[in-house]
Formats: sequence, structure tokens, C-alpha cells
Amino acid sequence: MQNIKEYLTTNKERFINELIEFLKIPSVSADPAFSEDVITASKAVKKSLLDAGCDTVEIYETDGHPIVYGEKIINADLPTILVYGHYDVQPADPIDLWDSPPFEPIIKKTELHPEGAVFARGACDDKGQMYMHVKALEFMVQTNQLPCNVKFMIEGEEEVGSNNLAVFVANNKEKLANDIILISDTGMIANDVPSITTGLRGLSYVEVEVTGPNRDLHSGLYGGAVANPINILTKMIASLHDENNRITIPVFYDKVEELSQKERAEMAKAPFDLEGYQKALHIKTVYGEKGYTTNERNSIRPTLDVNGIWGGYTGEGAKTVIAGKAYAKISMRLVPNQDWHEITELFTAHFEHIAPEGVTVKVTPHHGGQGYVTPIDTIGYKAASKAYETAFGKKPIPQRSGGSIPIVALFEKELKSKTILMGFGLDSDAIHSPNEHFGVWNYLKGIETIPYFYEYFTAMST
Amino acid sequence: MQNIKEYLTTNKERFINELIEFLKIPSVSADPAFSEDVITASKAVKKSLLDAGCDTVEIYETDGHPIVYGEKIINADLPTILVYGHYDVQPADPIDLWDSPPFEPIIKKTELHPEGAVFARGACDDKGQMYMHVKALEFMVQTNQLPCNVKFMIEGEEEVGSNNLAVFVANNKEKLANDIILISDTGMIANDVPSITTGLRGLSYVEVEVTGPNRDLHSGLYGGAVANPINILTKMIASLHDENNRITIPVFYDKVEELSQKERAEMAKAPFDLEGYQKALHIKTVYGEKGYTTNERNSIRPTLDVNGIWGGYTGEGAKTVIAGKAYAKISMRLVPNQDWHEITELFTAHFEHIAPEGVTVKVTPHHGGQGYVTPIDTIGYKAASKAYETAFGKKPIPQRSGGSIPIVALFEKELKSKTILMGFGLDSDAIHSPNEHFGVWNYLKGIETIPYFYEYFTAMST
Repeated sequence: MQNIKEYLTTNKERFINELIEFLKIPSVSADPAFSEDVITASKAVKKSLLDAGCDTVEIYETDGHPIVYGEKIINADLPTILVYGHYDVQPADPIDLWDSPPFEPIIKKTELHPEGAVFARGACDDKGQMYMHVKALEFMVQTNQLPCNVKFMIEGEEEVGSNNLAVFVANNKEKLANDIILISDTGMIANDVPSITTGLRGLSYVEVEVTGPNRDLHSGLYGGAVANPINILTKMIASLHDENNRITIPVFYDKVEELSQKERAEMAKAPFDLEGYQKALHIKTVYGEKGYTTNERNSIRPTLDVNGIWGGYTGEGAKTVIAGKAYAKISMRLVPNQDWHEITELFTAHFEHIAPEGVTVKVTPHHGGQGYVTPIDTIGYKAASKAYETAFGKKPIPQRSGGSIPIVALFEKELKSKTILMGFGLDSDAIHSPNEHFGVWNYLKGIETIPYFYEYFTAMST
Repeated sequence: MQNIKEYLTTNKERFINELIEFLKIPSVSADPAFSEDVITASKAVKKSLLDAGCDTVEIYETDGHPIVYGEKIINADLPTILVYGHYDVQPADPIDLWDSPPFEPIIKKTELHPEGAVFARGACDDKGQMYMHVKALEFMVQTNQLPCNVKFMIEGEEEVGSNNLAVFVANNKEKLANDIILISDTGMIANDVPSITTGLRGLSYVEVEVTGPNRDLHSGLYGGAVANPINILTKMIASLHDENNRITIPVFYDKVEELSQKERAEMAKAPFDLEGYQKALHIKTVYGEKGYTTNERNSIRPTLDVNGIWGGYTGEGAKTVIAGKAYAKISMRLVPNQDWHEITELFTAHFEHIAPEGVTVKVTPHHGGQGYVTPIDTIGYKAASKAYETAFGKKPIPQRSGGSIPIVALFEKELKSKTILMGFGLDSDAIHSPNEHFGVWNYLKGIETIPYFYEYFTAMST
């Protein structure tokens, strides 16, 4: 791979421009208003894979958004890497908090990205990170250095639960057969502190609806005499955490994997600047489950967060109304051994149980997925570690992430293979938030690191 | 007044059509998008007062929406009645819960209004009730039976706090001098149970904002580690009531007027059908402060209700985000002796005090007003009672209402006169809610009752 740096220097500008064109497509999977754009994005993925050197690429229709599958098989006796990524993006709301339009990418310098970062919805999650793999393939094919077989499975529903991908995987086990799955949809600690994600949290996402009276009421005539669905909803949600910020749903913690003191001490060695963390978020103090550090709270501990709440009059001025209904979107991040189906049921039963008599509640499960922990003594992890060491000049730190890629646990179950999470984004890249961005340096570093993984993994496997 | 029924029969259709035209103007005072319509409505009021027989009518500009003032002075030695009403209406949201467009009035029959009701925003609150006074004046002028002087003060900011009316009143005490103030902006118990409102609750309306991190965050990467403003807001709001549904703000109840057992027993005599009440609202049970009946909870007890709440992702589908901010609109209904300025300060201090360290909170007072209790041994009340008895064939019941007309306490302070609240709407008329309506029977009954009040009040006063 002596010439990867040279290839990057020659093609850097084109690689950035291609990504920018891809980011212009508003492929928001959650919102039906963008369904045409999602299809456009799937076609762009197909074209990019063919251009990069895949032998065949097909777009597979599903009950939801399509899946793009491509492959380049050079020799059946060589190992096969399956690259997974997604071309759909989170909704851009709240739009007015973006400094530039979410689907008009621009490059700006930031404190952590002095060489510039591409600002756009999906820049990091996951269009930019997925596209690193396309460009890494292009390099290996163009320079005749592809050492093994490669398959790409790029979906359009990661941000809405990957329901149709699960069906596709179950129905195409042979086509998807591989020796290792490679995903770049996570982050690393810092540009000078490379890390590999070894754990993901599971997820249970639900929507709740509290119904009181059959219509909105005048708060003067009825105030104090009937259950106000918003007041009740706040009471119900508030009761889901106790005074130590532990979740109060019965049985919720029963299966939670408790780390040993030794494992926690090992985790605590990862560099973490609490003051810088607080300063970056403009908060005076962190907040969370008693007895755990910030890095533990957002990785090895389960959580319950309200992601959205609404009800009553939210316009300008004042309206003295008691709303008939109040709503919230609530997600729980889960840790290994917690089953998301079971947690969704526990939540539903508990939420229905705590509803006072004056209201009725409805819980609608949205989606979810199991958590995942990857071992670090495998060929896959070792090859990834060596690839980072070569590209970054220092050994990466294994790190559990708080995020979720629900499909990873399913891959292991259905395809019997391990996943390596090679993420190149930073926590501060604002994924899922306004002003999402992805460092140009990180983008190019990813393209540089990936071919080393191919090389080392093939060498170690054969 | 022998010929009022005849006059009504002759003019009924026109009276209804005129009201329908008036209701077509979307004079929503809270929303700047409707400011032109508010002006159009003020001009319609002016024209209607001139048509009805006022000698002079002027539109007074204010820092907000204009005030319409008209008068007909027949003899300085005779008593003067000041009619107050408002031509502005509540926002129509949520629009999609209306069965017909809020500003395209239609007449439909209902269980409680077998002769039909006009469905439109403002039908009852307060365009319809205000217009009864205009048509009653027309009758008295046309039939040469106006027994006293009359002044009209019709404002366009009642639904947003009447701030500019307060200034107008303070600056025009002489112009507004009167012997009694007459307002139809309340309800009565039922069409066969006439009642006169003798008390109003005060109001303090605030908006709160809870700020956590400086931007929306990914709920996986940060979930459990930073204070989620929505979770915190629900906890803070939930803590505002204790397990007996009493408000927990310190000093809040200190000045609350406690009724004697005798007074409460007197109140309990008013007909109230709890089962019918619950059935009409589709609720299994009522809910409120322990130790008080439904009729007490919504009239003689203070309350705290969330009128709107919002934050995070509220669109279709799922977004795994921790919002940077969460908001709520909160109103407190107050009882006599509670000062709304003081309560607003108590709320603000308490809400700031209970905010945990990981967030900052901002409380913005919207508007408010004092409560009011009117004595029943005055000439004004006696004349009103007799007017109802003549029109309805039965004596009206004095009743404390849970609603607020903040300006009433101010009238007493500035103009030194008492107010009579002659309301003809029903609680089920859905004021402030989708499908607001006003019974045609009630509208005509109001026009019939008002001239009797003029007659009896003049006779008793002179």
C-alpha cells in the first residue's frame, strides 16, 4: 500500500466533491415526503459502487426503502469482507438551528477540524463514512491491490430501524456469506487518539399517547377538575427515574451486564477531559445515574431519554386550554443481555400500569435492536488494530460506545460472523443534530486505513 | 317590553345571519398573521353599534389591537350602563380537530342545542355573546324603549391579556363613568337552570424554557450522561403538584380564601350531574385536589395547568435526539385574595430554585389578572336576577365560575363600579376548543333578557 498517500493526494479534491454531490440528496428515511430522494440516493450508491470496480450491483426493493447490494469476487478461496453502511439520513429538524442549509454541503474549519469539515446532514452518519469504503475499493481496484473478495450491503432504513434489512439478511444468507463484517458508523476518541468501538448499546424506541377528555377544554372552566393529559404525562415520565437517576421500570435492570471493578478500571484509563466535555456542551455539570462516571453512563449503562414531547398550544402567545391528548417519543438505550423486545414489553406494561384513572394511555413500539459487544482477541480486531496503527502511527484504544446499530447483533445471529466497527467520526461531529459535519482529514484518513485492514485481514486469515 | 318576543320572531333570521357574517372574520389576537383581520373585526363592531343606534362610535388605536367605544346618552340624570365585550378570538388550533372550518360558521343541532347552534371560533367567546348586547340595543332604540344611557367598550385583546385596555381605562375614567358594568362572557348551568356568575378566578400565565446542552445531541452518544432538558422539564412540572394534587409552590396557598362549611354546603346545592359530566368528556373519573368536589375544584380552588409543552423531535417516525431545549406554557387560576403579580413571582422563584445544576431555566410571564367576587345584595345583581326570572320563568342561581376575565377586577379599581356577569353560554359549548359553538336559543334568549335588565336596573336606581 505504499502508494495510498500518493493516490489520496492526486484524488483528494475529486473524493471530496463526489461526497458533496452525494450529500445534496435529502434521503431522510423517516419522512415520506423524501421518499423520492431516498430512491435517488440508492441509485447514486449503485453508480458509485460500479464506478469503484464492483462486478455487479443490484438495487433490491423492500417493503420500505431499497437495499443496494454489490460485490467483487476475485477468488472463491480468498476471504470475503462484507461492508455494511446506510445511505439514509436523520431528519434535519430543527432546520432553523443550522448555520447553513442541511442539504447544501459546505466546508468550514472548526477547532477540532483545522483542515476543514463538510457540513451537511449525513456528512458523518453515515454517507461520509460509508463512502470511504467505496473510495478505498476504487483505490485497491485501480492499483490492482484488492487482496480479497468484497461485498457491499448499503441500506436506506438504518435511521428508522432496519426492519426490511432484517428480512433481506434472513432471506439471502448465502449471498451475504462472509468472513468479517466491516462497518464505519461509529466514532473515535480524537484525531490523535484513534479507537475502535467494541460495544454498542441496544435500543427500544416507543411513542406514548395520553388521552384525557375527548376534546380540548377551557382551562378556566375545567382546570383543577379533570386530569390534564400534559400534567399527567409529565408525572408519568418523571416517575420513570428515581432520585439516583435509576430507571424505575420493574425488572428493567435484571439482565444488565455488570462490569467487574477491573473492567471498570480498564475503561477509566481512556483519556477523558470532563472539563472540556462540559465546556463543549456549555453545561455546568454532567448528570446521570449515581455511582457511575460519564464514560460509563454513556456506554455500559442503560438509559431512558425523552426524544420529543408535544401537546396543547405551542404557538405564539397564550391559549388557556387543557389539551385532550399529550404525546412523547421515548427511547431506551440497552446494554448487553438486555433483550429489546422484553424491555419494550416491560416499558409498555409499566407505563400502562402507572396511568392514573382519569386518562388512558397507548404505547406504540417504533423499533429497536439488541446491543453488541465484540471480542478483541479475534483476527478481525487484530487486523483492524494493526491497520489503525499503520495509518495513525499509534495503537487504537478499544472503546464501548453508547450508540446503537441494531442490525449488528442480527448479523452475528444470521450470518454467524463478527463485525468490526471502524469509525472515524468524532462525538462533536453533531450527528443527529443541526450542523452535522465530518472532518476532511477524518474522511481521507478512513480511506487510507481501510485498505490496510483488507491487507492485514487477508494475510492473517490465509 | 311586551313586544320583545315579537321583535325577535320578526328579526331572528337577520340576527343570526349578521352574527354569522361577523364570525367569518378570523380575529385571532394572539397571532400576528391575523392582525389585518382583527382590524376588520373592529370596523365591523363600529358599524354594528352605529346601525343599532349609538350616537357616536370611535375606534381607539392602542399599542396593540384597537378598542371600539360607542355610546348613546339620552339623559345625564338617568343611570348609565357600560357594556364590555371583546371581538378577538382564541387561536383555532388544532385546526384538524374541527368538524367544519372554524371561520366558516354553520348551524347544526346538538343534544343540548336541539334548536341548533352556530359552530365557529368565537361563536360563544365572545362574539356571539357580545353581539346579543348590540341587538338588544337595536330593539330598545327601534321600539323607543331605551330607559337609560348606554356605553359600549369592545376590545380586541381579551384573549391575550387586555394590557392595552388597562391603559385605556386608566386614561378615560370620565368617558367610561357608569353605574354598572354589564358583561356577557361567561356561561350558565343549563338552558333550564339559569345562573349568574358571581365569581371569577384570577390568572397567571407563564412560559418556561429549560436549556441543557448548547445543541441537540445524539441520544446514544450522550444519553444517560447529560441532563436531558425534556426529562428535566417533566420532573420539574411533575413536582409542582403533591400526591394530593395540591400545588407545591411555597406560600402559594397562604392568601387563598377558605370558604366556610356553610358556604360550601350552599354551593353544593347547585345541580350537578357527575355521571353526565364524565360521560360528556369521555372520562372514567374526575381528578383534582383531594378534599374538594368537582364544582369546588373548578371555581373556589386555585389550579396549575400545563397548556402546552414541546421539545425535541415531534415529526413522523423516530429521531434519537436529546433536545437542547424544552418548553412549556403554564397557567395558574387564582382565587380571591391571591395577587397574580405575587403568584407569578412565587412561581418564577420556585421554578428557578428547583432546576437541577445541569440545566438553566427561564420563566417569561405572559399575562394575568386578579380574581373577582361580586356581591349578590346589590341593585345590579337584583335587577339581573329579576331579568332572568322574567325571561326564563325561574330565578337564576348565583354561581362562582372557574374562568377568568382579568379586566373585571381592574374595572372595579379604576371605575369604582360593580360588574354583572350575565352569561348565556354552556360549559359544553367548547370555547377555546375545536368545534366551539353557541346555541341559537341561547343567543336569542340573551337578546331577550338584556332589555329587562335595563328596565329593572333603571327602575331600581331611580
